[in-house]
Amino acid sequence: MFYHVKELQYHAKPERPDPVFARKLQEILGGQFGEISVALQYLFQGWNTRGDGKYRDMLMDIGTEELAHIEMLATMIARLLDGAPDVELDEAAKNPFVAAILGGSNPQHSIVSGLGAMPADANGNKWTADYIIASGNLLADFRANLNSESQGRLQAVRLYEQTDDRGVKDMLSWLIARDTMHQNQWYAACLELEAKENIVVPSTFPRELEKQEVAYTFYNNSAGTKSAKGRWAHGPSIDGLGQFNYFENPVPFGEKPKLNPAPPYIHDTPPAALRKSDDMPDPDMK
Amino acid sequence: MFYHVKELQYHAKPERPDPVFARKLQEILGGQFGEISVALQYLFQGWNTRGDGKYRDMLMDIGTEELAHIEMLATMIARLLDGAPDVELDEAAKNPFVAAILGGSNPQHSIVSGLGAMPADANGNKWTADYIIASGNLLADFRANLNSESQGRLQAVRLYEQTDDRGVKDMLSWLIARDTMHQNQWYAACLELEAKENIVVPSTFPRELEKQEVAYTFYNNSAGTKSAKGRWAHGPSIDGLGQFNYFENPVPFGEKPKLNPAPPYIHDTPPAALRKSDDMPDPDMK
Amino acid sequence: MFYHVKELQYHAKPERPDPVFARKLQEILGGQFGEISVALQYLFQGWNTRGDGKYRDMLMDIGTEELAHIEMLATMIARLLDGAPDVELDEAAKNPFVAAILGGSNPQHSIVSGLGAMPADANGNKWTADYIIASGNLLADFRANLNSESQGRLQAVRLYEQTDDRGVKDMLSWLIARDTMHQNQWYAACLELEAKENIVVPSTFPRELEKQEVAYTFYNNSAGTKSAKGRWAHGPSIDGLGQFNYFENPVPFGEKPKLNPAPPYIHDTPPAALRKSDDMPDPDMK
Amino acid sequence: MFYHVKELQYHAKPERPDPVFARKLQEILGGQFGEISVALQYLFQGWNTRGDGKYRDMLMDIGTEELAHIEMLATMIARLLDGAPDVELDEAAKNPFVAAILGGSNPQHSIVSGLGAMPADANGNKWTADYIIASGNLLADFRANLNSESQGRLQAVRLYEQTDDRGVKDMLSWLIARDTMHQNQWYAACLELEAKENIVVPSTFPRELEKQEVAYTFYNNSAGTKSAKGRWAHGPSIDGLGQFNYFENPVPFGEKPKLNPAPPYIHDTPPAALRKSDDMPDPDMK
Amino acid sequence: MFYHVKELQYHAKPERPDPVFARKLQEILGGQFGEISVALQYLFQGWNTRGDGKYRDMLMDIGTEELAHIEMLATMIARLLDGAPDVELDEAAKNPFVAAILGGSNPQHSIVSGLGAMPADANGNKWTADYIIASGNLLADFRANLNSESQGRLQAVRLYEQTDDRGVKDMLSWLIARDTMHQNQWYAACLELEAKENIVVPSTFPRELEKQEVAYTFYNNSAGTKSAKGRWAHGPSIDGLGQFNYFENPVPFGEKPKLNPAPPYIHDTPPAALRKSDDMPDPDMK
Amino acid sequence: MFYHVKELQYHAKPERPDPVFARKLQEILGGQFGEISVALQYLFQGWNTRGDGKYRDMLMDIGTEELAHIEMLATMIARLLDGAPDVELDEAAKNPFVAAILGGSNPQHSIVSGLGAMPADANGNKWTADYIIASGNLLADFRANLNSESQGRLQAVRLYEQTDDRGVKDMLSWLIARDTMHQNQWYAACLELEAKENIVVPSTFPRELEKQEVAYTFYNNSAGTKSAKGRWAHGPSIDGLGQFNYFENPVPFGEKPKLNPAPPYIHDTPPAALRKSDDMPDPDMK
Repeated sequence: MFYHVKELQYHAKPERPDPVFARKLQEILGGQFGEISVALQYLFQGWNTRGDGKYRDMLMDIGTEELAHIEMLATMIARLLDGAPDVELDEAAKNPFVAAILGGSNPQHSIVSGLGAMPADANGNKWTADYIIASGNLLADFRANLNSESQGRLQAVRLYEQTDDRGVKDMLSWLIARDTMHQNQWYAACLELEAKENIVVPSTFPRELEKQEVAYTFYNNSAGTKSAKGRWAHGPSIDGLGQFNYFENPVPFGEKPKLNPAPPYIHDTPPAALRKSDDMPDPDMK
Repeated sequence: MFYHVKELQYHAKPERPDPVFARKLQEILGGQFGEISVALQYLFQGWNTRGDGKYRDMLMDIGTEELAHIEMLATMIARLLDGAPDVELDEAAKNPFVAAILGGSNPQHSIVSGLGAMPADANGNKWTADYIIASGNLLADFRANLNSESQGRLQAVRLYEQTDDRGVKDMLSWLIARDTMHQNQWYAACLELEAKENIVVPSTFPRELEKQEVAYTFYNNSAGTKSAKGRWAHGPSIDGLGQFNYFENPVPFGEKPKLNPAPPYIHDTPPAALRKSDDMPDPDMK
Repeated sequence: MFYHVKELQYHAKPERPDPVFARKLQEILGGQFGEISVALQYLFQGWNTRGDGKYRDMLMDIGTEELAHIEMLATMIARLLDGAPDVELDEAAKNPFVAAILGGSNPQHSIVSGLGAMPADANGNKWTADYIIASGNLLADFRANLNSESQGRLQAVRLYEQTDDRGVKDMLSWLIARDTMHQNQWYAACLELEAKENIVVPSTFPRELEKQEVAYTFYNNSAGTKSAKGRWAHGPSIDGLGQFNYFENPVPFGEKPKLNPAPPYIHDTPPAALRKSDDMPDPDMK
Repeated sequence: MFYHVKELQYHAKPERPDPVFARKLQEILGGQFGEISVALQYLFQGWNTRGDGKYRDMLMDIGTEELAHIEMLATMIARLLDGAPDVELDEAAKNPFVAAILGGSNPQHSIVSGLGAMPADANGNKWTADYIIASGNLLADFRANLNSESQGRLQAVRLYEQTDDRGVKDMLSWLIARDTMHQNQWYAACLELEAKENIVVPSTFPRELEKQEVAYTFYNNSAGTKSAKGRWAHGPSIDGLGQFNYFENPVPFGEKPKLNPAPPYIHDTPPAALRKSDDMPDPDMK
Repeated sequence: MFYHVKELQYHAKPERPDPVFARKLQEILGGQFGEISVALQYLFQGWNTRGDGKYRDMLMDIGTEELAHIEMLATMIARLLDGAPDVELDEAAKNPFVAAILGGSNPQHSIVSGLGAMPADANGNKWTADYIIASGNLLADFRANLNSESQGRLQAVRLYEQTDDRGVKDMLSWLIARDTMHQNQWYAACLELEAKENIVVPSTFPRELEKQEVAYTFYNNSAGTKSAKGRWAHGPSIDGLGQFNYFENPVPFGEKPKLNPAPPYIHDTPPAALRKSDDMPDPDMK
Repeated sequence: MFYHVKELQYHAKPERPDPVFARKLQEILGGQFGEISVALQYLFQGWNTRGDGKYRDMLMDIGTEELAHIEMLATMIARLLDGAPDVELDEAAKNPFVAAILGGSNPQHSIVSGLGAMPADANGNKWTADYIIASGNLLADFRANLNSESQGRLQAVRLYEQTDDRGVKDMLSWLIARDTMHQNQWYAACLELEAKENIVVPSTFPRELEKQEVAYTFYNNSAGTKSAKGRWAHGPSIDGLGQFNYFENPVPFGEKPKLNPAPPYIHDTPPAALRKSDDMPDPDMK
């Protein structure tokens, strides 16, 4: 169960309205790695955690914090849209500032949301749960989380560079710092579980049931062998159970696939038509 | 540019048809962490890599391999659907086997794809590029890749457990082994870059521009403090630049947000209507 | 900002596992009118409310409650999936119970989420922000909310009828009661605003700027006039500003649309080709 | 079955082309509350109506009218795109008018649709049936319809304010008037059904089966009690069957959820790994 | 503008309810090539046709007919769902008929739509305008339409084979016949335009502006040359302007792509980190 | 199985960066008829082809070529984004060039992809497998392919006209020429199969099972008869099995649909409420 307090976790006040930046800021609210994504990702992982208090508690704590970040961004975006002008093409004809607003802002902010934030990204794509991950395996999911915080901080930093508004920068510097913490946190959580399970997810599948002869092989599927220079191509594997090896000229292990014809009720191309297609001489058969 | 060879990378022959398992297997072909996702994710990361041969080459190599995995799964699914019966409710009434097929198979396999594989997941959701990630920052993206291979291997293992078909298990044991390699590979690539950049992505943003006072703080946003037991709550941070600390009773740093009224052309609730809403005594004002 | 308490708002314990009902219950968690929809709808409406404390406070209160409902449903679904069997087609051949589970459960529950709840509906469609509404106009949005609670209660009641599990029924009877309150609540809020604004949204657009001659007309666009029997066809309009009237045989007020040709860079069908299409005698021109 | 007449229901002729406004106008053609949404929503409700002539007839009448509105908007958008210039960045460098067009128009109008209308919103998101509602319960659905017409008129009014083109304004004043009628109409239809059924949907579920003790309670889930001022917090409930009451400090009725471990074939985090996570002292256990 | 008549274009009465077939039939109502797709595709093509009466009239005629097909299918599906039983897992345990219904029907038919048709496909994916095509170029679009009717008739035929219900078969035999007409019709329309424009769309782009040396070349991008047997590999091209030729061993015409580094505000992997990645000996450089 | 060579199939070098055109070019990379669509469409058709070498080989050849086109476009887009400036509203105020870039470029290129190409269209909609087609019936699918290449070439030509960059035009002239070949190719393949099967897909459904009396009838569902002028309205049908005929005043063959009431557990509008709706006199009953 949740409670709400009316104060924001941190300030969300721009120096001045900027509807173009409001559109951009939507990315870290409602984009693939926006705050809605991390909030629901951590909460679902928490709710689905089976059997342990510590990880569940931690997931709920951070998921709950991300709800506060949604709130800060929604507030900031509404303020960046404050008094957004009602601009037309004729006015834009005279003024590059107006032209930039007409072109660079999200028209749905003035038509649909009434100058409020939307659960959507910088191109107006609505948020979708396709973005989030909760598998029940904590090590797998903590890696997903480490990625989310890495992508999220990267986007926040890119946005920080694209504005001069000190109020916006101030809020972003808070969110960037929290992402620093959260990258550290998920990294720490991964190390803790890897120390108990080794690094390959899931750790509980018997290794002898997989094709061990290809479990540490790098396939060079292209001309050139620059890819042989990496740590992944030689030496002991990271899980300590094998040796990396580099396969310079990979060959198929399987055969040419040949499918049986479909049953009649499927009404595929009739076999007779396919046979007639052999009327022309077949170069393979020469 | 690409070339195709007709042979499969590895065998893809089931012992017998099974339209219900064909539906399930769609998950690792066209689901969030299916082979289409990893193929296009690695290829886009490769195409977008700026300035270095080794990582780009490696990304193209593995992306190209994943195309071969799509091919194996598409072939296996078509074979699992081989001669799928044309079943009706009346027949199902007499036979649990028929009932299970009627209920458990994907109706689009017989109506839409003609007993072929589809670019969709186990519930028939079509594949979408919402699933994939390519940011231009290699460490961020390699973390995404480590996650993809972790989720992907987890799903392959769960599917391995849900069938007795030795042909299917044989193919899955190949794919599971490749995922073992790929987890090792991305882990190795991450370690290589972390050794050069430290662990926080992006490494190039000046640390003094973020709110350093909250860059290593865990906020306990719930009653109870089990979350204090983790590695993330005490001791030096993983990036070596701070000390984790645990904030047991977090408080807001911001203020109650108050938004200005919208301009008239937005036609929000009129201020007069809002004022009249104060006719009833306000308990806050007591 | 938000806090979490570990206890559930209400009990969420089924008598026994039932993976088929778990799939169905997803509808009111992650479907169009599921708890994710109402939670985010009310919170976004609250965050975007400009200028008044009472409605914003109320929206945040109820949005925060809906987060607790997501939590209850996620917990219930995980428990309904408890120990979900790993069933195969061969077993189903012998047993209608197994056949029903194989067919009626969501395969992603065992492949993707590890027997946890997913942010998706009863068919596995992922939740999308396409479902939610926040326009900045409170009367419009409260009507959206009244609809959401009506659809939501209807779905909960239908689900209540489709299970015999007393634990599930107990939880649903809680959620149904809350929906009773919430329908009453939004109805009350609508009445309050309608009393101040009249019923047509938005109330601030000057009535003389709309075509008043068709503002109270019902068009009977079909043969037969049963639609004339309704309250909407005769008598004073609900807003008190007009008289309903019934137009039995509506005719067009506009003209046949004729579009200019596209500029050459668009490469539409060339005008010459269109002209030649008049070679056959035109029956209209007779 | 349907017939088409070539004349438009009302005029759809702009004074002059304006590709930027064409993009905006897409919102009420193909957006969440655009004409495609209401047309298909009313038609599906009509087709699914079980057992009564009057409501079905009315739904078909209005759904058929909305098809005419799609046609008017499609025609208007094509005309606003008439002769849309083929503009480039170099030209934009010299001219804010060109810059505004380059930025503010929808590039798919010139690349994909050949300067025709698209079934998409102002940001180019394609229309989806996620937007529409048809439950079989008429009162629930009429509330959905009242909301749709409220949101739709609000958007039309906002667009009316964002153009000076008298032809566009003329068409919008027609659509706005029809939305006035349609809000009145659905309101009237709701009142009719509420008079027979009371206000809570569905009316046929036995009230004693819901938790009556919480069926009229407002939960104040936040600090501060401004939400107590509303009509929803005190006095008789709108359905006349209870008394609203305000719960200032809500507490959980449930318990902390604890989930059982998953079966082994799910390959979650192994219990041993979870146990070891207790190595650090647990602050809760102090 | 449109009118509706209450009678169906053709009968839509099943012999008996069958909720499993109702689910399957959704495919040709709300799937990729269902009746919603063709109705809106033809109507949008008609509304966007610039400058000619005959094709526009024809498009509107057939689009209007497809609306009648949506209506027939919606009616048929509602009847197949008539009195659909409220089945539970316990009952299914005893009865394969119940098990098949529990597994094979769409749960949203009983939870969401109240036993009515939905704008969705056989897997419950909601209809989306991603499915439809209207480019402004009539020859391109008539080819899209020929494809739609081919896929649509194929699906209707497959469904015809999967039921024994004479009422359903009767309706399908109507729809299949209409698809026969519509394939003939679009084929005829294509021939008419091809006679005026030649076969390559668009016909108005100057041929000398394309790389003519590769305009009739088949690239054999795989081992083996079975693909040389087709009409497309030898002889005069279909447009009569070239000779097909077969390139057995295609080679790249371009160079290895090398991208410049990103500007600093993008925060990609820092160049220094990339340089250090050359510490290991590069096999390409040997 | 696939191999990659590092060289591009053809050059992909613009004369100069242009972030606005980069956004537009996304359409033919990740839009409905972009290269991702054709690559995956042809590959899935190839993988699902049952029983014949020649068509499968040809499909794999061309699908593999399309992968090379994705690569060329991804490279070109990254170069068009090279050094894309980090522009702000304040700068735009002074300079229409900056205003155009701010408005006309895709903000996700600088926030999300790090100035790399994305699997998305010109409006930033992510690529989805909703776009592609693979039915197992080759004639149906080759028609889909002919359409794809027609739409694709049309879009490429429109883009060619919208830029002056000689490097971009050079690459487009390659892609346009390949589309010329591919239209010729699919046309040839269709002719080959039609010669064996006649033109109606599928050719294997017994014609006597369809309602032959309406298999060659054009229904004129609108006032006016311009549509009678086409080849489709008179003369022998294209399949040679019937005579086209024109039905000027079509009438319904079916009856008014009347649906039974839903069972009680569905909780639709109660029959009593519907009955009371007859209180007003019914004009139909006069």
